[in-house]
Amino acid sequence: MKKLANIKSPVPSDIDVSQSLKLWSIRRIAQSIGIQDNELELHGDSRGRIKLDVLERLKNKPNGKYVLVTGINPTPFGEGKTTTSVGLSQSIGAHLNKKVFTCLRCPSRGPTFGIKGGAAGGGYSQVIPMETFNLDVPDIDAVAIANNLLSAAIDTRMFHERTQTNKGLFKRLCPADKKGERFFTKAMISRLTKLGIYKTNPNDLTKEEIADFVRLDLDPDTISWRRVVDVNDRFLRGITVGNGPKERGQIRSTGFDIAVASECMVILALSNSLHDMRERMGKIVVGMSKKGVPITAEDIGAAGAMTVLMKESLKPSLMQTLERTPVLVHAGPFANIAHGNSSIIADKIALKLVGEDGYVVTEAGFGADCGAEKFFNIKCRSSGLVPNCSVIVATARALKHHGGASLKECKETNVGALKRGVVNLVKHVENMKKFGVPVVVALNRFHTDTDEECDVILNAAKRAGAFDAVISDHFSKGGLGAVNLAKSVERACKQKSNFKFLYDLDQPIKKKIGIIAREIYGADGVDYLNNTNEKIEEYEKNGFGNLPICVAKTQYSFSHDAKLLGRPSGFRIPVQDIRASVGAGFVFPILGAISTMPGLPTRPAYYNVDVDEKGNILGLF
Amino acid sequence: MKKLANIKSPVPSDIDVSQSLKLWSIRRIAQSIGIQDNELELHGDSRGRIKLDVLERLKNKPNGKYVLVTGINPTPFGEGKTTTSVGLSQSIGAHLNKKVFTCLRCPSRGPTFGIKGGAAGGGYSQVIPMETFNLDVPDIDAVAIANNLLSAAIDTRMFHERTQTNKGLFKRLCPADKKGERFFTKAMISRLTKLGIYKTNPNDLTKEEIADFVRLDLDPDTISWRRVVDVNDRFLRGITVGNGPKERGQIRSTGFDIAVASECMVILALSNSLHDMRERMGKIVVGMSKKGVPITAEDIGAAGAMTVLMKESLKPSLMQTLERTPVLVHAGPFANIAHGNSSIIADKIALKLVGEDGYVVTEAGFGADCGAEKFFNIKCRSSGLVPNCSVIVATARALKHHGGASLKECKETNVGALKRGVVNLVKHVENMKKFGVPVVVALNRFHTDTDEECDVILNAAKRAGAFDAVISDHFSKGGLGAVNLAKSVERACKQKSNFKFLYDLDQPIKKKIGIIAREIYGADGVDYLNNTNEKIEEYEKNGFGNLPICVAKTQYSFSHDAKLLGRPSGFRIPVQDIRASVGAGFVFPILGAISTMPGLPTRPAYYNVDVDEKGNILGLF
Repeated sequence: MKKLANIKSPVPSDIDVSQSLKLWSIRRIAQSIGIQDNELELHGDSRGRIKLDVLERLKNKPNGKYVLVTGINPTPFGEGKTTTSVGLSQSIGAHLNKKVFTCLRCPSRGPTFGIKGGAAGGGYSQVIPMETFNLDVPDIDAVAIANNLLSAAIDTRMFHERTQTNKGLFKRLCPADKKGERFFTKAMISRLTKLGIYKTNPNDLTKEEIADFVRLDLDPDTISWRRVVDVNDRFLRGITVGNGPKERGQIRSTGFDIAVASECMVILALSNSLHDMRERMGKIVVGMSKKGVPITAEDIGAAGAMTVLMKESLKPSLMQTLERTPVLVHAGPFANIAHGNSSIIADKIALKLVGEDGYVVTEAGFGADCGAEKFFNIKCRSSGLVPNCSVIVATARALKHHGGASLKECKETNVGALKRGVVNLVKHVENMKKFGVPVVVALNRFHTDTDEECDVILNAAKRAGAFDAVISDHFSKGGLGAVNLAKSVERACKQKSNFKFLYDLDQPIKKKIGIIAREIYGADGVDYLNNTNEKIEEYEKNGFGNLPICVAKTQYSFSHDAKLLGRPSGFRIPVQDIRASVGAGFVFPILGAISTMPGLPTRPAYYNVDVDEKGNILGLF
Repeated sequence: MKKLANIKSPVPSDIDVSQSLKLWSIRRIAQSIGIQDNELELHGDSRGRIKLDVLERLKNKPNGKYVLVTGINPTPFGEGKTTTSVGLSQSIGAHLNKKVFTCLRCPSRGPTFGIKGGAAGGGYSQVIPMETFNLDVPDIDAVAIANNLLSAAIDTRMFHERTQTNKGLFKRLCPADKKGERFFTKAMISRLTKLGIYKTNPNDLTKEEIADFVRLDLDPDTISWRRVVDVNDRFLRGITVGNGPKERGQIRSTGFDIAVASECMVILALSNSLHDMRERMGKIVVGMSKKGVPITAEDIGAAGAMTVLMKESLKPSLMQTLERTPVLVHAGPFANIAHGNSSIIADKIALKLVGEDGYVVTEAGFGADCGAEKFFNIKCRSSGLVPNCSVIVATARALKHHGGASLKECKETNVGALKRGVVNLVKHVENMKKFGVPVVVALNRFHTDTDEECDVILNAAKRAGAFDAVISDHFSKGGLGAVNLAKSVERACKQKSNFKFLYDLDQPIKKKIGIIAREIYGADGVDYLNNTNEKIEEYEKNGFGNLPICVAKTQYSFSHDAKLLGRPSGFRIPVQDIRASVGAGFVFPILGAISTMPGLPTRPAYYNVDVDEKGNILGLF
């Protein structure tokens, strides 16, 4: 850890700040947090991977304090959750001299080259180097290829089933080896078990058993598995595949999602071990057979290979902040159709490494109605970890917008709008308390915010039951600007955590959705539209009823409607569609049109990106 | 370097051999060949990247000997070029105690999980660990995302041009910055220069100039740039994009290629520096404007970002053989529509590192009619390097097939078929001599080959003018089995190289194609079918006439027809289509249906791939 020297005002551009400091070697960062040399794999000069062996070595060591950073419902500008996570960590590490880890998600290159730019924090609270953080994201490449191997396997399997007899399929699926013997692979044994066939010698199967075994009989209209790419390619949202002459007319409508929307990414984020990941891969449901049986990646025979393709990615990547505190970058699932949280494995490793007196700061995407609710009910349920404190990041800008100011107006002083809009923050504070976790509100202050405005926010937060509410100025000052926040978090973590889930898994799907809708969103109830009633019945019949719920909805409102700002009431949420990510392990009701593939603007960020004569990267932000 | 101990007979499976040895640390490998610590970037425990700085440090050092490994026209089994490259290197390094480097291509995961399996060599001549070699191939991921960023940019640009006025486009392409000023990016200046507009202030453009500047006016029917994925996904060969409702009916037929078929991969392989790569990226032609002007990646504004996405991949990856000689794995372009050679940068680094008394063994794909011809005429032309020796790998099996034995029969002794088929080897030897490079024939011996069969091959090769022809048994014995081959190569490299290109670049396209057809393939002439005459005229008009030629054809025959085995004569080659990879820097005539996207068999290799309880990878081969 090393405090920042020479802080400039006004704050230079993010890339100028990022490139102004000399990196510590990753080995030095690792040593500073107690990672042994044999537990560190270097990947270039500015990133390392931590081997999972560290969990075995430290299994009897107590965990550190577990701090979630979440936020109010944001504006399209973003309200600085990542920047706050980094600033808070810099403060805990370099200013309070406690052990600390920041756990962040891998950024997709889609937004980096599209509209949003990078995701490494900002100002004097950044992960460095930003080039590595934003561009060197092998977890996403691994997810994409595992996802797409399964896609290729699905269409090709349908093709082979369509063009071959049972006998031909069986002969090819279980060919004789060099010694003339046939055998079933692990995936085949799983499929046979699912069919109630407990034979291990291919020669013993009856004609009927062979037919059941070789024909997955996928109904093309039910296939929900889509291909992915880590680029904002809107023209792949809806495509037709199989137009080539050799595919003999097997044409199908499907599409691509951005890679971070892949269920494989969720699996990476929610797995507790390699074994756990392998099991989840096998459970992925790609569609239904014509008889209505869910067909899995295990049935297809691809789950083992998918796991192998993602095996290296299970090791979180070690990086550093501007004040040389350690960061783990790992996974990066979408925050709507997925749970939008950084990985369980990174958090677990970090908690052991910081130890009893240390802190792990982990971030959840979107507002607390999505990110934090899913953190508690999905991620903590899968990990068994208990959070000690929740930090809600708020900005005066966004709260003014919630109080009726337009996006342009809300940069100006407007105490009236702020007083109306602060109810958004109040509701989030109340929500966090339902999980039994102390809440600290971090007001991410902009230099234009007046003292009066700040007081409105801090007072409202405290009245709503926040353990504390403080101004944080980490963007301009780094860890130094977040010392008050860090001290509040420290005190909050000394409170007894009464952490509890909002719902039990064994309740029916609709009951669970209803609890989230009423308790978290403040809705009057839930309407099930289209064929969602039938789908829920089908999921419960197929044994998916006991999964947690991951609501896919807008981040801009507590409700399903981005325009319902503040603390809306008197609304019902419409479940337009519902889907299941069985491998990831949740059911996701969809409350409106959710884009799983962003587009590019007329002037995308890539226009600025280039290399200079010396090979330096230009134009990232 | 370390000789193998405990060689077993029969040879265990590739993965068992690969996993039976303890790796040397990559740092130790690097040190053994003179790479300094600050020139090495570790990437995990078994791979490192070499920084291009090493070229600057060693720029005044003489190059080592440059040895190309190529082959006869193979059977579908493959005849062991990679295994021979590795075995020869193990022998030079661990048995002759000379400095040596092996330069290989990155393997695509398509074939690894499809039919072919891995590509790390075999038996006792392998690159280890094979898991890393076959699965950890970030160069391909970088190529794929750079390629696909351009694809997304093309369709989205057409969309924005279709839906916006000139004024709207210009306002968005050159928005005012925070200070209210507008500026052109580097890519925009390039486009303006192409249009003959030499203004640097956006405010100075006339209405007409704005129209020319903002409208690329791509003709959708001319777009040749396809998307890529590193999976054998045949259902992506022909697709329709833009079916989503928000794309407003902008539908187009296109398709995906396997990632290694991307022009970005060729650029990676043929670039001499980062600057060179940036220039080539900008020159990529994606299609034609409606007025017939080639539209480039520079026009689209994506070439800088594509370069940034591939910047790290420009550093070759260091690995090791079973006898701990150093290997560079880098790039991996397709061997038909591209030139199928490992990278220039890897070869250059290796040649400097081994120095005057050392050897660099580099491999070219397909038979010598494709791989070696393109190595000499395309790769050596781009690099300026001069080869010292060419090794042609031959097997009795393949030569029997060339003599009329079926693929099944050719495993059995058949001197008659061999005597007929050996003409294939003879023609390849004669061809190599046309380039003025001494040829050593390496008979990759199988244990079933009789002495008589071996003699037929060796004698024919010598009579044809090979500098030497020797039996090599590196599969069963590692470097020890290739000592005779290594000694022959050593002697051949002491010969004076009279290297020359087969054609001059300033000859017309048809003249160059004709020279290759007659001299290398033994054809009587060339027929230009479909609209290839017009396309050639157009290319020459657009200034692409002085590029070298990269013929896309079958690897199984000297001709365009896979069934014309041996040394065919009395045939003419049909140019069915012709295309230009202007960024890569060649024109490629297509002699028949060339698949740029392989399929998966009914029982793909992925079925066997899994992890065991301890996390080891199973089922790779």
